[in-house]
Amino acid sequence: MSTPRDPRRPTRLPEYASRDRAVLDGLLDTALVGHFGLVAEDGTPVVIPTAVIRDGDRVLAHGSTGSRWMRMLAAGAPTALAVTAYDGLIVARSAFESSIRYRSAVVFGRCAAVGDDDKERVLDLVTERLLPGRVAEVRRPSKAELAATLVLALPLDDWSLKVSDGWPEDEQADIDGPAWAGVVPLVLSHAPALPAPDLADGIAVPPSVRALTD
Amino acid sequence: MSTPRDPRRPTRLPEYASRDRAVLDGLLDTALVGHFGLVAEDGTPVVIPTAVIRDGDRVLAHGSTGSRWMRMLAAGAPTALAVTAYDGLIVARSAFESSIRYRSAVVFGRCAAVGDDDKERVLDLVTERLLPGRVAEVRRPSKAELAATLVLALPLDDWSLKVSDGWPEDEQADIDGPAWAGVVPLVLSHAPALPAPDLADGIAVPPSVRALTD
Repeated sequence: MSTPRDPRRPTRLPEYASRDRAVLDGLLDTALVGHFGLVAEDGTPVVIPTAVIRDGDRVLAHGSTGSRWMRMLAAGAPTALAVTAYDGLIVARSAFESSIRYRSAVVFGRCAAVGDDDKERVLDLVTERLLPGRVAEVRRPSKAELAATLVLALPLDDWSLKVSDGWPEDEQADIDGPAWAGVVPLVLSHAPALPAPDLADGIAVPPSVRALTD
Repeated sequence: MSTPRDPRRPTRLPEYASRDRAVLDGLLDTALVGHFGLVAEDGTPVVIPTAVIRDGDRVLAHGSTGSRWMRMLAAGAPTALAVTAYDGLIVARSAFESSIRYRSAVVFGRCAAVGDDDKERVLDLVTERLLPGRVAEVRRPSKAELAATLVLALPLDDWSLKVSDGWPEDEQADIDGPAWAGVVPLVLSHAPALPAPDLADGIAVPPSVRALTD
């Protein structure tokens, strides 16, 4: 077996590999979360789930300045950010060929912390991506809140993408057999909004939330 | 700032930390996927998304014997497996307090490969967990299929769990203000099944798939 040139590149299922930036963007723009991989000081692996959004040619994540993993990422520790969408079950005629429809991106590199001059603008982007229209409905962040928030930016320079969006690929003997085959799409949706227990009477569900759930 | 005793333990948001094994099991039993963190030979982090299921006191994952990451895990490389469920948006009265309802587990340790004597039984568990009832609807795996499949087992010995299932925690000044606050639950569901393009006429959608989508 030959040694791959880059150990992080997909070597399995090369037919699923994609260099389509539009597909990458589509995944990053709809996935709510990503998983940052890190190597701890003792050499063991760490995985950190967090909300991620795309801002042009970079991925943004935010968290508390009190988080040591966020600080380690902000200091430029090498990272791999996985963003994965599971789009459906591929139900083949055999268990072996049964699989999952997915889109899976990994972005490699080092994060930088977004500077104070740009933090407020960028946090608005995060809020708007997670709940479009919300920025106009809430007060501006305070200086203390901005100071307590770390925003990381990971450039979209070095990434891999795999897309499985096909159908069962059964052997002919199975295709000729009695078993059903197909795909069951997975759908992520929002249930009706639940008001907070301390919500004052007479405050209506705002347009941002209505747009999600209607 | 004091140094945490174990660098992998959650040091942020300790109020979300849980040692409730039933909650861990509930997460592992409903999440379809997990993300394995690894350290590559060159010392850089790698994150591998894959389907995971729980079998008693261990987590199982399966893949191809041709996958170098699977083989690295099977050889006992230290790993961190993150399993994350996003349960809803916490819409606070300020952007700063807005957040996500989630359950987030990380299992630390080393995988072992399930031996040939137990592989077929364990793969049935995987199939049944991903699509209950499917094992009875498909043929048995062939020897070649079993030989091509690597099944990893990661013991549930060393794990951390964080659960955010609350409500917005706004400052009093915001609570007294005009903004709405609440939670928008996220719901994962299945759309109606799509038959494979090569499905023969007259083969009905099987009970396993109907149970998912009805």
